[in-house]
Amino acid sequence: MGSFALFLSALLCIASALSSYGIVGVEGYLKYDTGSGIVDGKLNVHLVAHSHDDVGWLKTIDQYYVGSNNSIQGACVENTLDSVVMALRRDPSRKFIFAEMAFFSRWWEEQSVEIQQEVRKLVDAGRLEFVNGGWCMHDEATTHYIDMIDQTTLGHQLIKSQFNKTPRAGWQIDPFGHSAVQAYLLGAELGFDSVHFARVDYQDRAKRKGDKSLEVIWQGSRTFGSSSQIFANAFPVHYSPPEGFHFEVNDYFNPVQDNPLLFDFNVEVRVNDFIAAAMIQANVTRTNHIMWTMGDDFQYQYAESWFKQMDKLIHYVNKDGRVNALYSTPSIYTDAKYAANETWPLKLDDYFPYADSPNAYWTGFYTSRPALKRYIRLLSGYYLAARQIEYLMGRRSTGNANTDGLGNALGIAQHHDAVTGTAKQHTTNDYAKRLAIGASEAETVVDSALSCLVDSKLNGQCAGSTVIFSQCQLLNISFCPSTEKDFSQGKSLVVVAYNSLGWNRTDIIRIPVNDHDLVVKDSTGEVVESQYVKVDNVTSKLRKFYVEAYTGISDRHAIKYWLVFSASVPPLGWNTYFISKESQKGNRRHGFMSTMDLPKKETIEIGPGNLKLSFSSSSGQLKRMFNSKTGIDIPVQQSYLWYASSPGDADPQASGAYIFRPNGSPPSVVSRSVPLKIIRGPLVDEVHQQFSSWIYQIIRVYRDKDHAEVEFTIGPIPTDDSIGKEVITRLTANMVTDKVFYTDSNARDFLKRVRDYRADWPLTVTQPVAGNYYPINLGIYIEDNKSELSVLVDRATGGSSINDGEVELMLHRRMITDDARGVGEALDELVCVNNTCEGLTVRGNYYISINELGAGARWRRTTGQEIYSPLLLAFTHEDSRKWKSSHSTTATSMEANYSLPFNVALITLQELVDGSVLVRLAHLYEANEDPDYSKLAKVELKKMFAGKTIKTLKETSLSANQEKSEMTRKTWKVVKGETNSEPAPIRGGPVDFSSLIVELGPMEIRTFIITF
Amino acid sequence: MGSFALFLSALLCIASALSSYGIVGVEGYLKYDTGSGIVDGKLNVHLVAHSHDDVGWLKTIDQYYVGSNNSIQGACVENTLDSVVMALRRDPSRKFIFAEMAFFSRWWEEQSVEIQQEVRKLVDAGRLEFVNGGWCMHDEATTHYIDMIDQTTLGHQLIKSQFNKTPRAGWQIDPFGHSAVQAYLLGAELGFDSVHFARVDYQDRAKRKGDKSLEVIWQGSRTFGSSSQIFANAFPVHYSPPEGFHFEVNDYFNPVQDNPLLFDFNVEVRVNDFIAAAMIQANVTRTNHIMWTMGDDFQYQYAESWFKQMDKLIHYVNKDGRVNALYSTPSIYTDAKYAANETWPLKLDDYFPYADSPNAYWTGFYTSRPALKRYIRLLSGYYLAARQIEYLMGRRSTGNANTDGLGNALGIAQHHDAVTGTAKQHTTNDYAKRLAIGASEAETVVDSALSCLVDSKLNGQCAGSTVIFSQCQLLNISFCPSTEKDFSQGKSLVVVAYNSLGWNRTDIIRIPVNDHDLVVKDSTGEVVESQYVKVDNVTSKLRKFYVEAYTGISDRHAIKYWLVFSASVPPLGWNTYFISKESQKGNRRHGFMSTMDLPKKETIEIGPGNLKLSFSSSSGQLKRMFNSKTGIDIPVQQSYLWYASSPGDADPQASGAYIFRPNGSPPSVVSRSVPLKIIRGPLVDEVHQQFSSWIYQIIRVYRDKDHAEVEFTIGPIPTDDSIGKEVITRLTANMVTDKVFYTDSNARDFLKRVRDYRADWPLTVTQPVAGNYYPINLGIYIEDNKSELSVLVDRATGGSSINDGEVELMLHRRMITDDARGVGEALDELVCVNNTCEGLTVRGNYYISINELGAGARWRRTTGQEIYSPLLLAFTHEDSRKWKSSHSTTATSMEANYSLPFNVALITLQELVDGSVLVRLAHLYEANEDPDYSKLAKVELKKMFAGKTIKTLKETSLSANQEKSEMTRKTWKVVKGETNSEPAPIRGGPVDFSSLIVELGPMEIRTFIITF
Repeated sequence: MGSFALFLSALLCIASALSSYGIVGVEGYLKYDTGSGIVDGKLNVHLVAHSHDDVGWLKTIDQYYVGSNNSIQGACVENTLDSVVMALRRDPSRKFIFAEMAFFSRWWEEQSVEIQQEVRKLVDAGRLEFVNGGWCMHDEATTHYIDMIDQTTLGHQLIKSQFNKTPRAGWQIDPFGHSAVQAYLLGAELGFDSVHFARVDYQDRAKRKGDKSLEVIWQGSRTFGSSSQIFANAFPVHYSPPEGFHFEVNDYFNPVQDNPLLFDFNVEVRVNDFIAAAMIQANVTRTNHIMWTMGDDFQYQYAESWFKQMDKLIHYVNKDGRVNALYSTPSIYTDAKYAANETWPLKLDDYFPYADSPNAYWTGFYTSRPALKRYIRLLSGYYLAARQIEYLMGRRSTGNANTDGLGNALGIAQHHDAVTGTAKQHTTNDYAKRLAIGASEAETVVDSALSCLVDSKLNGQCAGSTVIFSQCQLLNISFCPSTEKDFSQGKSLVVVAYNSLGWNRTDIIRIPVNDHDLVVKDSTGEVVESQYVKVDNVTSKLRKFYVEAYTGISDRHAIKYWLVFSASVPPLGWNTYFISKESQKGNRRHGFMSTMDLPKKETIEIGPGNLKLSFSSSSGQLKRMFNSKTGIDIPVQQSYLWYASSPGDADPQASGAYIFRPNGSPPSVVSRSVPLKIIRGPLVDEVHQQFSSWIYQIIRVYRDKDHAEVEFTIGPIPTDDSIGKEVITRLTANMVTDKVFYTDSNARDFLKRVRDYRADWPLTVTQPVAGNYYPINLGIYIEDNKSELSVLVDRATGGSSINDGEVELMLHRRMITDDARGVGEALDELVCVNNTCEGLTVRGNYYISINELGAGARWRRTTGQEIYSPLLLAFTHEDSRKWKSSHSTTATSMEANYSLPFNVALITLQELVDGSVLVRLAHLYEANEDPDYSKLAKVELKKMFAGKTIKTLKETSLSANQEKSEMTRKTWKVVKGETNSEPAPIRGGPVDFSSLIVELGPMEIRTFIITF
Repeated sequence: MGSFALFLSALLCIASALSSYGIVGVEGYLKYDTGSGIVDGKLNVHLVAHSHDDVGWLKTIDQYYVGSNNSIQGACVENTLDSVVMALRRDPSRKFIFAEMAFFSRWWEEQSVEIQQEVRKLVDAGRLEFVNGGWCMHDEATTHYIDMIDQTTLGHQLIKSQFNKTPRAGWQIDPFGHSAVQAYLLGAELGFDSVHFARVDYQDRAKRKGDKSLEVIWQGSRTFGSSSQIFANAFPVHYSPPEGFHFEVNDYFNPVQDNPLLFDFNVEVRVNDFIAAAMIQANVTRTNHIMWTMGDDFQYQYAESWFKQMDKLIHYVNKDGRVNALYSTPSIYTDAKYAANETWPLKLDDYFPYADSPNAYWTGFYTSRPALKRYIRLLSGYYLAARQIEYLMGRRSTGNANTDGLGNALGIAQHHDAVTGTAKQHTTNDYAKRLAIGASEAETVVDSALSCLVDSKLNGQCAGSTVIFSQCQLLNISFCPSTEKDFSQGKSLVVVAYNSLGWNRTDIIRIPVNDHDLVVKDSTGEVVESQYVKVDNVTSKLRKFYVEAYTGISDRHAIKYWLVFSASVPPLGWNTYFISKESQKGNRRHGFMSTMDLPKKETIEIGPGNLKLSFSSSSGQLKRMFNSKTGIDIPVQQSYLWYASSPGDADPQASGAYIFRPNGSPPSVVSRSVPLKIIRGPLVDEVHQQFSSWIYQIIRVYRDKDHAEVEFTIGPIPTDDSIGKEVITRLTANMVTDKVFYTDSNARDFLKRVRDYRADWPLTVTQPVAGNYYPINLGIYIEDNKSELSVLVDRATGGSSINDGEVELMLHRRMITDDARGVGEALDELVCVNNTCEGLTVRGNYYISINELGAGARWRRTTGQEIYSPLLLAFTHEDSRKWKSSHSTTATSMEANYSLPFNVALITLQELVDGSVLVRLAHLYEANEDPDYSKLAKVELKKMFAGKTIKTLKETSLSANQEKSEMTRKTWKVVKGETNSEPAPIRGGPVDFSSLIVELGPMEIRTFIITF
């Protein structure tokens, strides 16, 4: 007993398991047959092997790459790429797709020539396919389209130069909702046939599974209609494999055991499992083709673990014969879908907002980490300008420094856990560090290039310039050592303002100074009107704390004044201003010291120009806006409120970095009555208001602008009551808006939003606030039958119109809880000086305009572009006469008096490493948006590139990785009745090489590679 | 503020990290220089890449192999081997060692010819080195030396046949203490130069670190002395790398980051870490060579993860130059140690018991799972016999069946978490299942071969035999369908008894029968004396429960009698007995019905032969043993007790599968007074005693044997009091033993043990019981100045002599707690029928003999061999006359009247797949153990292989993987004074091919490959 442990019954079981199945399994070596490809007439299960590699999230990008910090997450992308290449070499049928070129480039550069050769072969054979192919898998809610284009171009350049390939499939599997701009611009206009993603609203998904409309033809652009459509594949569950088919090394799964000499032979069981899972998916999918996403986050650490199982499954499933399994890729899959000649449902607009369950609307991340979001947007505009200046002087002239580091850092920052604010804090710090390093390098480029450009002695050669420019990244908190310097030594503060826009602009320059007896002169020596505004205490305090926090410099003194003056700068050019102490002893004061207004009446009106804002002096509340030129007059209130974050209740879902879930109470009004401090002057009137100890606001109304600029300073948000707070500003206008409002898609198209409504399915409203939030990158507006109220933002922001006539923006969030989507930290940003930490304070601007119905677009488009591309200011100190004698004080790089049409922006002007020049021109208006500007526009390249001769000009795809003429486009059939009858879109014709005039239709972006 | 997150200070840190170190790191591809090898004059750090792959533990061997059940442990040996081969191909300096051929064979058979070619190249180049090379890494405490040899041979055969290689290094890194037999027999006699291991007593280790004696020259054999020494390397910590140098995929470690373009460059830091760790080890190690064991349990799931880090470390450490790092193997390391010409400490005896902390003596596993241990031992003897029978008939004659499956299962079962009883229950079930399948196959071989052998018509050809033999694996619980059959149909029960010993033997056969009117006749027709003993109730109950538990057969009836008779069988041959109902109606009873004795006096004596045991009729206690032939007379008591298992206290260490930790109280006596049931007969007297509801004992004293046989039935051990119990039997003799007792090493050498003492260091006694336990496989004995008291066991058992004159054996254990060494289950074995489970009952035997001082060895050696190799019984039913006319009823395969000397055992006789025959002869006595038998013995092969002509004879190493003449041996220098002056050992000379006589010195085992 005991001694004779006979397991006869167990023995019998093994025998029957073996005999009951036709396939007896393998003894010895078996070459698995995995090369059958697609089989007509069968259900084809496309196994798409992939690893979803976040370009930073729980770990930093480099930690993910080298595999450090594995206590947080076992993830090493180097392992993935190493082992995938090894695994692909073992069997010629195996395929793999890879998306994130920021990772791939790190790996590629470290490989031997032999491995690189091997990889080139794999890519050539279509066995290693790059999908998306951007630097990262960018977010679609909080990104600017220019950044999306730039980061995609960065990756596509690498693929083109190293492999001579152009990606064909969009692979946006993880971003939290999907934008219209993604579909048409970063999809069809890139030459992609398809885009694939996992995250769509749970209600939407349920409906789509029911009517087999997970896969659609998506037309993201109202302007382009069917000329810019793409096949869009929303996965039925997620981007992981069906349950039980997840084969990561060391993970728990049931391996296919086909060696009959070992115990637990299970081929039949696993084949049946496979077919069952395939049938479930086939039942919600059109055609005989289904895709299995064989991967997950940071998988294929040891690729063979996956491929070995897939080899066996393909072999035995196909031997079984009921379905056909194959190694595939998104492009093979899309070709199969196309060949099936099926009719597809049509999808318009976008997939926002995204919810994965009734109380889990992913609309918090539209605002999360507003400081990071602003930093990214600020540097995006700076990067555009810096590349122009780099180009103007020539890459070779700027020494070792170049703008590539900034481009790289910005590329990473577009990742769907970067700009979204959904990375861990230490990873967020890493993004900021990379941006700071990149910005610092770009600043070096700009300083050095500008110093050559403006030096008239150098004639475009950059060698002997001795000017040392500096710039001020912390201007918004009044920190700028150059302008604070003592003016006494006979030298002037020289301000060079560079304008990266294609048209002449006049804008306000605000610099901090310590003196109030300065005179501002332009390049002709004329005195320029200026105004002093005392620096408020809130700014002084911020300056003190944050300068030390960010630079380590303990700031000794507060700065006294803002010096405000108006500058006029030619397109793609610069102008120079000289600021000095008046040398004559005369008492004539040149700058206007702003006056403090003591309210005497109940209603106070401010605004030195057309726009007037009136306030109640008793409550401090804004009461109305009035434009004396247009006559538009709208009663409007403005206030700050906060939603209390839900910490979870019966449903444990809390509000967090991703998810906005207010606790159900109406938002708390921060202050119903707030004192007014009114400051007036010739250039600008300001209303300062302290709404609470942690919210300060300045409204500025300029003489020469038709909008109000609101500067908010929010923070530290108090959480000592253990309540997370999500702070909004709300404009309440007396307008009948009938649930409708408009928000932009990636700062490009405006989409119509209807409260509590989705076009694609009958919405069950579970979150009346969070479920109506949309991402905003450019702006939001509402309209009634005669007016528009528009708000533009300075960064990605969440916003909505929760009640008719209202517009709200969420400006800052601070929470106690994590929302259980993996990040594992509450969104509770701290800033520390010497171990004293406080919640992050955020300062920013938004802009309000009122317009006649139909006239708002012009303001939104032009002002939007100016906000994105502010004047770039460089400072130095020199005797103004000496400077003028040896420097070009004002210039444009275009032909004198030429400027781009107001409906066109030059969104890229960049010298590439081979000396050719990348040029992108973007029409800024949608079809029918503006009676004058929604028209074909023309750009005369000869005038734009004055003084240069264009040798070759090649029009390319959006990411410049293929010639426009070579691009092919699939035409898909859509279900009848779903096609909207549309006029053919206006697009510019081919560029005639003799005239070199580029035409652009509404919303058109045209990309060129030019050599001179 | 927020918007301008400048991290200037962080920037500065990076720059300084890069510049402060001479090595600036790599941009782009770098070929790491890892091929320097050993550098004289520097500290050489030998990186030995390995994965410790348990042949079953938390998962079964096949689960470990294919990587299933990863929820228990992420481990897939297939991954290890696949990825190691890939990794070795990437760099010619990389090396790896592999030990467990049970895993390797699974993998090897599945590989393509190309991979096999590749692996052969790696092995040839010494880059993939097999260490140990056995089927598993066998345990050293609970294994029989024959099993150790067999399982090692199995692996070495594979290595020899596939790679033509002979392993040179022992690699016993994990077994829980180390045996003398391992050192000299499974070490030096295999041709190994070295053995490497991690687990030595913590006090021993501390002392050895202090005097640099972790590495020693180990002489495990008293008999062979310095002629059988080996270099033994005990690791300073464990078999894992120094802390921080553990590089498993997904694990948390600090990777060497040498790409200056990425953040966290750390080459200098890691080089310094490496050197610091090396210096710590160098300080406790002789010579300039230290070994780092770069691996751990089931590592190298993705080998590149390790090799990539090691490549970098070797490269940068060697560039630094303070120490030299290299890829190495145990044999390279040992050669370097040897070349250093150092003097080494000498080590004698063994490394038992093993403790890893004061209350953690790993002496529980000597007994854990006694039923499994018995099953393995039983099948070990059976395997020996079955191979003989297979050989006698020829492998080709036995159809598809062979004994390989049993050999394989037994090979696995020797693993240090198998026979040890330290695997999880489901894994233990798997071992038992494999053994049962193997046994069943071997039974088929034996049945089929025997039926041909005994058939005199067939003349050695095996085709037409119609006899169907059966055997009875559950005889010990009276279950044997063949013998229980109705005898009425004129047929006899034919019993063929096969003797696998080399000498003629007379032994008792006990079979269950239902009739008491049977007659036993021998092959000449003579009636054989027989005796009936009624089957006791305890056995009947066991039969009922366990037959159903193990076979699924619900047993309808109890069996009535044991039929006992004496059989005499020639060496390597058989004899036949016929049992039938007496056909004549005469009333003469042939079998003696045992009588029940009712005690009348206080002292009762039993024993029909020389040996007498006397008991107290009032207490039931054994009082003395007396041998009337030798006159030895020893007062001796025998009792059962149990130690209460410690569940942990201030030290949370609990008793468990590995660790024996009694709770500190003296053991509880099960019963001080126990009724006697005395059964007498001509062949055997029996004393039946029910010590408690869960302990039943039968002492049998046979007329023709000079020892007492004790059959114990223990279980289910009650644990309803929540106390774990460790049940012992204790003999208390009136002998002055002065702390000394003797236990065997793997059933081969006897080692002297001294209570509370270690020869190698001054012992601090923390566990007065557990710390004095030693493993027993053959037996234990004590002696005083005139007598010896010896006990032999039927399986691996823990035992000791806790007080002078005492001998105790631990027979069974059942616990509530786990001992926190990984297995994660309490040792609480259950047996279930229809979901009714109870604690495991264990039945077994031990044997007691009393001898004159110096005469015990003869009993221990001969009886020991007979216990290991019992008669093999095969049953069938046939008319006895018919049988005799067509069958050879008695025969020996040796020359008539030849037998092996009593001091020699034929431990292997096996036909190999190529038709050659493997023969192992073992001298059974140590030097000076017996005046007559500790002498040179001679075996005449011509007589042994009667009727066959030896064509070739090749003497080989113990595992038959190299010719004896080709074996080389290193001679190591030992510290002066530690060499014990020894006479040269007696060894047999070369075998003269004409006479073919094999000489064997004491303890000598000689191995031959013979062809006929």
